[in-house]
Amino acid sequence: METKDALLSLISEPTEGSGNKVTVVGVGQVGMACAFSILSQGVSSDVVLVDVMEDKLKGEMMDLQHGALFLKNARIAASTDYSVTAGSKLCIITAGVRQKEGESRLDLVQRNTDVLKHIVPKLVQYSPDTIILVVSNPVDILTYVAWKLSGLPKNRVIGSGTNLDTSRFRFLISQKLGVSPSSVHGWIIGEHGDSSVAIWSGVNVAGVRLRELNPSVGTSEDPENWTDIHKQVIMSAYDVIKLKGYTSWAIGLSVASLASSILRNSNNVHAVSTYVKGVHGIEQDVFLSVPAVLGLNGISYIVKQELNGRTEVLEHPENGKLPVWWK
Amino acid sequence: METKDALLSLISEPTEGSGNKVTVVGVGQVGMACAFSILSQGVSSDVVLVDVMEDKLKGEMMDLQHGALFLKNARIAASTDYSVTAGSKLCIITAGVRQKEGESRLDLVQRNTDVLKHIVPKLVQYSPDTIILVVSNPVDILTYVAWKLSGLPKNRVIGSGTNLDTSRFRFLISQKLGVSPSSVHGWIIGEHGDSSVAIWSGVNVAGVRLRELNPSVGTSEDPENWTDIHKQVIMSAYDVIKLKGYTSWAIGLSVASLASSILRNSNNVHAVSTYVKGVHGIEQDVFLSVPAVLGLNGISYIVKQELNGRTEVLEHPENGKLPVWWK
Amino acid sequence: METKDALLSLISEPTEGSGNKVTVVGVGQVGMACAFSILSQGVSSDVVLVDVMEDKLKGEMMDLQHGALFLKNARIAASTDYSVTAGSKLCIITAGVRQKEGESRLDLVQRNTDVLKHIVPKLVQYSPDTIILVVSNPVDILTYVAWKLSGLPKNRVIGSGTNLDTSRFRFLISQKLGVSPSSVHGWIIGEHGDSSVAIWSGVNVAGVRLRELNPSVGTSEDPENWTDIHKQVIMSAYDVIKLKGYTSWAIGLSVASLASSILRNSNNVHAVSTYVKGVHGIEQDVFLSVPAVLGLNGISYIVKQELNGRTEVLEHPENGKLPVWWK
Amino acid sequence: METKDALLSLISEPTEGSGNKVTVVGVGQVGMACAFSILSQGVSSDVVLVDVMEDKLKGEMMDLQHGALFLKNARIAASTDYSVTAGSKLCIITAGVRQKEGESRLDLVQRNTDVLKHIVPKLVQYSPDTIILVVSNPVDILTYVAWKLSGLPKNRVIGSGTNLDTSRFRFLISQKLGVSPSSVHGWIIGEHGDSSVAIWSGVNVAGVRLRELNPSVGTSEDPENWTDIHKQVIMSAYDVIKLKGYTSWAIGLSVASLASSILRNSNNVHAVSTYVKGVHGIEQDVFLSVPAVLGLNGISYIVKQELNGRTEVLEHPENGKLPVWWK
Repeated sequence: METKDALLSLISEPTEGSGNKVTVVGVGQVGMACAFSILSQGVSSDVVLVDVMEDKLKGEMMDLQHGALFLKNARIAASTDYSVTAGSKLCIITAGVRQKEGESRLDLVQRNTDVLKHIVPKLVQYSPDTIILVVSNPVDILTYVAWKLSGLPKNRVIGSGTNLDTSRFRFLISQKLGVSPSSVHGWIIGEHGDSSVAIWSGVNVAGVRLRELNPSVGTSEDPENWTDIHKQVIMSAYDVIKLKGYTSWAIGLSVASLASSILRNSNNVHAVSTYVKGVHGIEQDVFLSVPAVLGLNGISYIVKQELNGRTEVLEHPENGKLPVWWK
Repeated sequence: METKDALLSLISEPTEGSGNKVTVVGVGQVGMACAFSILSQGVSSDVVLVDVMEDKLKGEMMDLQHGALFLKNARIAASTDYSVTAGSKLCIITAGVRQKEGESRLDLVQRNTDVLKHIVPKLVQYSPDTIILVVSNPVDILTYVAWKLSGLPKNRVIGSGTNLDTSRFRFLISQKLGVSPSSVHGWIIGEHGDSSVAIWSGVNVAGVRLRELNPSVGTSEDPENWTDIHKQVIMSAYDVIKLKGYTSWAIGLSVASLASSILRNSNNVHAVSTYVKGVHGIEQDVFLSVPAVLGLNGISYIVKQELNGRTEVLEHPENGKLPVWWK
Repeated sequence: METKDALLSLISEPTEGSGNKVTVVGVGQVGMACAFSILSQGVSSDVVLVDVMEDKLKGEMMDLQHGALFLKNARIAASTDYSVTAGSKLCIITAGVRQKEGESRLDLVQRNTDVLKHIVPKLVQYSPDTIILVVSNPVDILTYVAWKLSGLPKNRVIGSGTNLDTSRFRFLISQKLGVSPSSVHGWIIGEHGDSSVAIWSGVNVAGVRLRELNPSVGTSEDPENWTDIHKQVIMSAYDVIKLKGYTSWAIGLSVASLASSILRNSNNVHAVSTYVKGVHGIEQDVFLSVPAVLGLNGISYIVKQELNGRTEVLEHPENGKLPVWWK
Repeated sequence: METKDALLSLISEPTEGSGNKVTVVGVGQVGMACAFSILSQGVSSDVVLVDVMEDKLKGEMMDLQHGALFLKNARIAASTDYSVTAGSKLCIITAGVRQKEGESRLDLVQRNTDVLKHIVPKLVQYSPDTIILVVSNPVDILTYVAWKLSGLPKNRVIGSGTNLDTSRFRFLISQKLGVSPSSVHGWIIGEHGDSSVAIWSGVNVAGVRLRELNPSVGTSEDPENWTDIHKQVIMSAYDVIKLKGYTSWAIGLSVASLASSILRNSNNVHAVSTYVKGVHGIEQDVFLSVPAVLGLNGISYIVKQELNGRTEVLEHPENGKLPVWWK
C-alpha cells in the first residue's frame, strides 16, 4: 500500500476551485510584484501566472511555491497555455515591453497593442465572466485596446490608471504635513503619467481643504510651491527607473489594493482608467482615470468631480491641453 | 436631482454576491464570537446572522455594521427569514440551549435536536451546495442529527468537534515547555468534551515525541503528571463557564480557523467531528472527531492515526470505554 | 531528567517583554471587545486584563488563552494587582458602570469618577510613560478626570470620543450612497453621544463635498433629510442597548483602530477626545473630540476644522449650544 | 502663515521611534524580497535599507515609499550611512555576492567575509542590543563570521539557515499528499543547501510518522522514492537560479517568518543556523541549523532531535559525511 493511502482515507475528492482566482499575465518585475503583493497580503489564495518565457515563468512559480508554507497554502500555478487561467475572477495584464529611461509611454503603444492581441481573446475564452485589469503602459490606451479586443462590457475592463499616481501624491503630501497618507485625501486623475491632473481643489485633511487655508495651493502663484509635489509625482516613474531600472513595489501594492476592492466587493473608490466619453465634457472615445467605485462587478459608479470649468486640466504642469492621443 | 445622482454616474449595477458568504445561525455569545472572529480576521467579507430573537438579532447586526469602517466594508446582514442566507458557502450552527454549570453536554441532546429541525432544512433549501458546520452541543450527536436532516453528503456536514480541545491542549503544553502552541503538536480526538481522547503517543515538538524522552508521558505512571493537562482540557469548558458564565472567544477563534481552511481551500488538517463508522474499528453509526483535511469541498480526507491497540481510548481519565451515545 | 530538559537546551533566558504591551482595565462587554479586537487583528501580541471581579477576570483570560494557537501565541495575562501592567505602552480604561437603557451618559459621571481614582494612579505608577485611552462613559468628562489624576501631559491622555460616532456616520452615509465607508469622508466631533456635532460641510467622496451638489445637506431645509443620519448616529447607542443590552463590537473595533495608530506610530487622523481649551473659541477647561494625529507619542497635532462661524455647532439637532457640563 | 500651521496645531512633537525597527543590509533581489515581505505582511512598520549602491538604494526606498498608503504608513528609510539604523531590534544581512549558476556556496566565503567586516561592526555600534540575522551565503559560515565580528552573545546572531529548505521540503511533501504544508511536519537541518539533512524519521501528519506506515521512507530502499523530495529541495536553489536568475520570494517570506517570531516574541520553533558545538556530538566550533525557539531575545532554546546514531547524517544523498568546512 502506498504511504499516502496508509495515511489518509478519501472521503470526497478535493476540489481545485477557490472562488477568488486571479491570473497575472506577464512575470516581469511588475507582474511579479503584483502577484506577490496579492499573495502576501492575503488578497487571493489562488494565483495563476502566464507568460511566453517558459523558464522565467517556471522559476517564478517555483519560487512562490517554495514560500507556500508562509502564504496559508495559497495555490500557485503557471503555464504558457491559457487553459490554466480558466475561471479567473480577475485577470491582470502586465505583459508588454516596459518603459525605458527616456522613453515616453506613448512610444510603447504599438508594440504593446500587438502583445494584447495574443492575450485578451484567450483570457476571455477561458474566463468569460472575468474582470480584466490592465497594468501595461501606456495604460489608458492599452485598456481601451483590451476593451475592444475583449468584447466585455465597459465595467469589466479597467486600467490601473492613476491609482498609483494618487498613492504617490498622498505620500508626498503626507511627508510635508506629518500626517499619514491614509488621512491625506487627494486625487490624481486623467492620464497615468506625464499628463496626469492633480485635483488640488479637493485636497483635504479631515475635510479641511488646503485651498481654504491657502487659496494658491496648486497654482503657480503659491509661495509654498505645492505644485512641486505634482511634478514629483509625474517624475516618480522616471526617477525610480533611473535609479533602480524599473518600478515594481508601489505598482504591485497599488494593483493589490484594486484586486482587494474587486474580490471583496468592497465598493471602495479608486482612481482607475475607464471609458470616459461624456464625462467632464470629453467627446472622444477614450479611457482615462477618474474616481470609480469598485466591486465584484468591476466599476459600478464613477464619481463626478467638479473640475471648476476645466481649470484643473489647464493647470497641467507641462501640457496646456489634453494629450493628443486622447483624441 | 438627488445628491447621489449628482455625485455618482451609474456604470453597472453593483452586485450583492461575494463568493465567500458565511451564515451564522444563533447570535448568543458563541455565535457572535464566531461571526466577529471571522470578520475581524478577514476570513469572510460577507456574513449573515440568523436567529429567532428579533431584537437581539438586529442589535448584533447594527453593532457589527457600526464597525464596518474597520472591517474593510464587510457586508453584515441579519434576518429571522432564511432567504437572507441564500448562496452561503458555509453555514455555522451555534443555536441551541447552551451548557450550564454542572450540566453535561448529553443533557442537551433532545432540546437541541428539536432546534436543528427548524434550522437545517431551511439552510439546505437556500444553499443546496453549502457546507454545514455544527458548533452547538453536544456537538458530535448534533452533527449526526444535522447530517441526517440535511441530506447532504458526509463530507459537507462537519462538527467543530475537538478543534477547540486540541487548541487548549496545545496551549497548556506550550506553557509547560515555553514553546509557542503553533510549534507544539498534539491532538485531542473523539468526543468534544468529557470523553475526549488525548493522543499522547504523537505529541511532539519539531518531530521529537515527548514519549521518546519520557515513555510514561500521558500515563498514570508519569512522575511529571502530563495527564493533568488532558484533565485541564476536559475541565476547561466547565471552569470557564463557572468563572465567566459561558465560553466564547476560544470557540469563536477555533471556528474561524475552520472557516478559513474551508473558504481558502487550504487543505489544513483539523480535528473535526465527522462520520467515523469503519475508522479505528468503530462499527457504530456515529460522528466524532478525527484529524481531517478541510477545503472547499468540506472534508476530503481523514488521517488514520495509530491508536496503539486502543490503548489511547482506554486511557480516558473518567470513562473506560466509548460513551454510550456513540453506540 | 525532566522531559523539558531532555527536549530543549537552554541557550538564553526567554524574555517576557514585547514592546507593544496593552493593558485593558475592565473586562465587561466593552473591555473584552476591545481586548479581542486588538488580539484578533494583530494590533498587539501582549495584552493584560485588569478588573476587580476575580472570577470573571480569570475566566476571560483563560478563554482568550485557549485561543492563543489562533492568535500567533499572543501573551494574555490578567490580575487584580496592577503590577501585572508594568511597562504598558497603552492603557485602555473601560471600567465603570455602563450606560443603561434610558440613562444619559451624564448620570454616570460621579460613579465613574470614583472608579477612576482607583485605577489611574496605579496605571501611571507601573507605566509612567504610558498613553491612557479612556473609553468609559461619559468619555469626555472621564478623560478630563483621568488626565487630572494621571499627572501626564495632555498628549498622553486621550478619550475614545467620537471615533465610533464617526464610524457610524460614515457607515450610514455609505449605505445611502452605495460606497464603502472607507471612501466616504465625514466627521463627528464634540461630545461623544447626545450632543455630538456632524461636520456636514466637509462630508465628501473623492473630494467632492455633498454640499456642493446639494447646499442643504445637513440642514433642516434638506428635502433628502441627510440630517436623519446624524440623528441615527446619536440614537445608535440607545438603539443597540435597547436591542441587545449593551454595545460592544463597534466600540471594540474603534478602540483597536486607535490602538493600531498609536502602537504603529502611523500618524493617522482620528476624532478623539482631547483638551480643547483655545480650540474653536472654547474657553472652558474641557475635553471633547476633534480630529487628531495619533502616534507613539499620543496626540501630536489636532486638525483645525473650519466651523463656519459656529454654524455647525448650532446645527446640533437637540441642543442649541454646548452642553452645560462642558463648562 | 504656512498651510501646515493653518491646518494643524502642535500638541506634542511626534516621535520617530517604533519599537520594531528592522534594518535590511543589501538591496539586491533577496534583500528587497525580505524588506517587502516584512512590510506587506505587517511584521514591522519601520524598515531601514542600507547598501553601498546609492542610486539603487534610493530607487528601492522611493518605490517602497510610493506604496506607503497601502502599508499602513510604514516608515521606510534608507542610507549608505549606518547611523540611520540606530536602535534596530533586528538587523538582516543580505549583502554579498550572490550564488551564480554552477557556483557552490563555499566559493563565496572569502568575498562575503570581507563584506561582513564592513557591515557588522557598524550595525552593533548603532544598535548594541540588536539581533543579527544573516541571510547571505554560505549562510552557516557567514553567521559564524558575523558572530565573531559582532561580539554579541550567541543567542543574538542567527543564520536564516534551513528555515527555507524546510519550507521547500514541507511544500513538496504537501504536494505528494494533498495536505497543506502547514499540516505537514518535517525538518531539514544542518547546512543550508547542498549538504542539508532531512530528518525523515520525524516527518508526520497529525502525529502519524510516515515511517510508521512505510519504514523505508527516506532511505534508498524505498520503492516510493521519497528521498527524491530531499534531492529536489537541494536542487531548488540551483533550479530557480537557472530558470529565473536568482531566488527571492521564498527566502523573503522565510525571513519574514523569522522576523515575525522574533519581533512578536512568539517562541515559535524554526530551523535556523546557530552555534552547535556540543550538539549531536559536534566538537567543532561551527554554526549549522537545528530547530530553535525564537523570540525577542533571539534563540532561547534549541530542540534536541534524535538523530538515530547519526544515521540521518549518513543518508545525505551526495556527501557521506559532514562537509569539510564544518571543521
